[in-house]
Amino acid sequence: MEAKTPKESKTTYTDLVLPSETNPLNNLFGGELLARMDRAASISARRHSRRIVVTASVNHVAFNRSIPVGSVVTVEAIVSRAFRTSMEVFIEVYVEDRESGLRSLSNEAIYTFVAVDDLGSPVAIPPLKPETDLEISRYDAALRRKQLSLVLAGKMKANDATELKALFED
Amino acid sequence: MEAKTPKESKTTYTDLVLPSETNPLNNLFGGELLARMDRAASISARRHSRRIVVTASVNHVAFNRSIPVGSVVTVEAIVSRAFRTSMEVFIEVYVEDRESGLRSLSNEAIYTFVAVDDLGSPVAIPPLKPETDLEISRYDAALRRKQLSLVLAGKMKANDATELKALFED
Amino acid sequence: MEAKTPKESKTTYTDLVLPSETNPLNNLFGGELLARMDRAASISARRHSRRIVVTASVNHVAFNRSIPVGSVVTVEAIVSRAFRTSMEVFIEVYVEDRESGLRSLSNEAIYTFVAVDDLGSPVAIPPLKPETDLEISRYDAALRRKQLSLVLAGKMKANDATELKALFED
Amino acid sequence: MEAKTPKESKTTYTDLVLPSETNPLNNLFGGELLARMDRAASISARRHSRRIVVTASVNHVAFNRSIPVGSVVTVEAIVSRAFRTSMEVFIEVYVEDRESGLRSLSNEAIYTFVAVDDLGSPVAIPPLKPETDLEISRYDAALRRKQLSLVLAGKMKANDATELKALFED
Amino acid sequence: MEAKTPKESKTTYTDLVLPSETNPLNNLFGGELLARMDRAASISARRHSRRIVVTASVNHVAFNRSIPVGSVVTVEAIVSRAFRTSMEVFIEVYVEDRESGLRSLSNEAIYTFVAVDDLGSPVAIPPLKPETDLEISRYDAALRRKQLSLVLAGKMKANDATELKALFED
Amino acid sequence: MEAKTPKESKTTYTDLVLPSETNPLNNLFGGELLARMDRAASISARRHSRRIVVTASVNHVAFNRSIPVGSVVTVEAIVSRAFRTSMEVFIEVYVEDRESGLRSLSNEAIYTFVAVDDLGSPVAIPPLKPETDLEISRYDAALRRKQLSLVLAGKMKANDATELKALFED
Repeated sequence: MEAKTPKESKTTYTDLVLPSETNPLNNLFGGELLARMDRAASISARRHSRRIVVTASVNHVAFNRSIPVGSVVTVEAIVSRAFRTSMEVFIEVYVEDRESGLRSLSNEAIYTFVAVDDLGSPVAIPPLKPETDLEISRYDAALRRKQLSLVLAGKMKANDATELKALFED
Repeated sequence: MEAKTPKESKTTYTDLVLPSETNPLNNLFGGELLARMDRAASISARRHSRRIVVTASVNHVAFNRSIPVGSVVTVEAIVSRAFRTSMEVFIEVYVEDRESGLRSLSNEAIYTFVAVDDLGSPVAIPPLKPETDLEISRYDAALRRKQLSLVLAGKMKANDATELKALFED
Repeated sequence: MEAKTPKESKTTYTDLVLPSETNPLNNLFGGELLARMDRAASISARRHSRRIVVTASVNHVAFNRSIPVGSVVTVEAIVSRAFRTSMEVFIEVYVEDRESGLRSLSNEAIYTFVAVDDLGSPVAIPPLKPETDLEISRYDAALRRKQLSLVLAGKMKANDATELKALFED
Repeated sequence: MEAKTPKESKTTYTDLVLPSETNPLNNLFGGELLARMDRAASISARRHSRRIVVTASVNHVAFNRSIPVGSVVTVEAIVSRAFRTSMEVFIEVYVEDRESGLRSLSNEAIYTFVAVDDLGSPVAIPPLKPETDLEISRYDAALRRKQLSLVLAGKMKANDATELKALFED
Repeated sequence: MEAKTPKESKTTYTDLVLPSETNPLNNLFGGELLARMDRAASISARRHSRRIVVTASVNHVAFNRSIPVGSVVTVEAIVSRAFRTSMEVFIEVYVEDRESGLRSLSNEAIYTFVAVDDLGSPVAIPPLKPETDLEISRYDAALRRKQLSLVLAGKMKANDATELKALFED
Repeated sequence: MEAKTPKESKTTYTDLVLPSETNPLNNLFGGELLARMDRAASISARRHSRRIVVTASVNHVAFNRSIPVGSVVTVEAIVSRAFRTSMEVFIEVYVEDRESGLRSLSNEAIYTFVAVDDLGSPVAIPPLKPETDLEISRYDAALRRKQLSLVLAGKMKANDATELKALFED
């Protein structure tokens, strides 16, 4: 299969925050944002693989800023690395101030998807060929994240996670 | 403030998987499950703190099993450790087979919430006093997870994360 | 078929009241609560019968207290009597005060479900064996309710409803 | 206050049954129909009283026929009796066969609403003046239903419910 | 096929405006009203044709009045002309003032639907036989609207749209 | 106020078609697509004006192609002309074939929005300065559409709609 570039999978989802999606402080529920990120990221993974995709894992996600009702929220998702049957997708969430028009980064997250056939069995997908510096840096970091995921799941020994272990040495 | 036990915050949310919540393989969307877990966990955090709570972070979540339409899904959330203004909540998801009545663990996840006042500023919360062995083991691990979170967010050096670092040494 | 106890069918559904579910006084719509009770009760009936179940009737339901937006509402459902193909399910609704943590009963309701096969025909279900005093008292009352239901539907003469009639004598 | 006729409060709600509202047999959930009936009936009660209204109780409701996905369902609600601050609303549900155009009665239900002011306190409403024979017969039966409701709630002794008791004599 | 009258397809959909359907001014979203009109109109087209129907086009729709949260909105749809396989449906939207009971016209719209078989191919439908003056006038205007639609879609030359062209001559 | 370019208002909304949004042929409801277009277009109008915006009218919309469940649908909205307080927004809808990755135009529509202050009164907005040939051509056509809208609403005589009338002459 021919390699694809990240930008071929780039997916943009811009929508308003409605009152039914907010907590008692009138800010977007964390769970609702997690669901929106999943939808945008799954479309990105599908564009890369041209397959049905299912969510395999969610990396650590931090909610640093609250997003008030009535905000315009943009979720951007882009495939950051393709393994044999799975893909890591990078997600950035931006919030826009209506009056100034300023747009600021509110969240980053990383989800992993597996490409499957109609019966749900994993299938091979095209490799990803990063182009920009940012894409290359995310591509390299994806391997460390995969190791961390395997260690946390008890499927790899911490000492075998070479790239990850390097983080804790000097 | 008086310490509370984990079981005082235990929250159970049992519901069906509806067709509108499923992907092309007729399984529950990952994003929908993330949102259900957030709702149950936020109620658990609110029961511990008796405050408005907002999602602060989502730890690594793995989706090991698909959950078909029509399933009965039970989300159980329980506070595993309280810090000064934040709480870690442990979430377990069970799926039930209608014909056999068997119930099996489908997902585990850890979310963190911050207790806030009406203006959204963090407020102090009661400590947690774990009782069972499982509760104590989760309580201890919560510190390592907090360190990992700080390291990944660039707010703590890997070498200062003493408990976490120990994982990679023998 | 082997008898089951009520607690084997106990179902708990704890969720928040969202703004989209409230009336102009910012209280939960009666219709929305009826729907939540139906979902919890149907899962309870399904756990007892291990069959597809369909709602057959709703007994008298009173709404004594309003439930404000942002409340945590717990719906608890438990099978109170099994007939040949139908089950009566007892439902209790509790509302929790966030600040005091106090939980109070807001509604009681009784729904009846029929167990059906894949074509929708009624099928026989296991008997129920009540254990506690409360369970036994509900079990006995279920027969009177069934008679009242038949009388109101014109399928039984009032004078033949022996247990029910006793209510109106001396 | 001037009396109103039932037809001044008549409310019609015609809508499709969508896949997200159906059970595993592809029929409309009982709970969803209860919610639709509540919405139509509350509009009817509001038209009679010109006040905010809240659901006070649901009388016995039987689900005799299943309603398949894709059906056109018509809910018709009309006030059947006005008491001092509360109203009884009669609801009929019709299902339409697309090919033959035939429309048949699928459910009947009776809900009670209370008219309230902006603070939620009950307020007096206009009397109802039934016109047709059917309207008069429902108007008379409403008193017996109110007595049954009071008896079941333990607020009236069975022997004092004169009109109701008559059902069980001779 | 035997001709039908407009009133045989008349469809009424009365519902409340909920908070989750409103913009920052607490008025009903235009898009939500477009969707409600589509549902009512599609039922009307289905009643005329007794077929599955799909939306073919939406004529010019003006939003002259805002509709505040909590309003009772009535959408009335009625087939105004049947062509060989398509129907034009006239839609009127009324808003009701709760306190005065006054009902006023808030929107008018015209949608076109095509009747199709189970595979989605267009099928012939019965003719429409208008009865009242208003129905006859709408019936005649429907032809001009069809020409305008064809001209705007580039499927008919403006000069061939005889009835439409007459509007611009004197 | 300084003029803005169309691309400053460009809004992209990419999402899946879910089962709950489809008709009996498993294609996206017309009404649901109208609502999605309204949301994307309103964000575009808001980005141009930095004001609260309300839908003023929907131009003729044709539904030429059905959009099956599971499709990825992209709605792109861009302001095509700004008048004193209102804006015309051009909307294009694309559907993507999952296996081939091909994306094809499925719908075009034009909505008009008015910018308002917090009390709902219209407010002046910046002019639009089209840049590309396509943008200039849409900008010019917007005036004819405005005239057609005024003629159809009876607010302008057909003979005074100079640019529009030219369409019918040769």
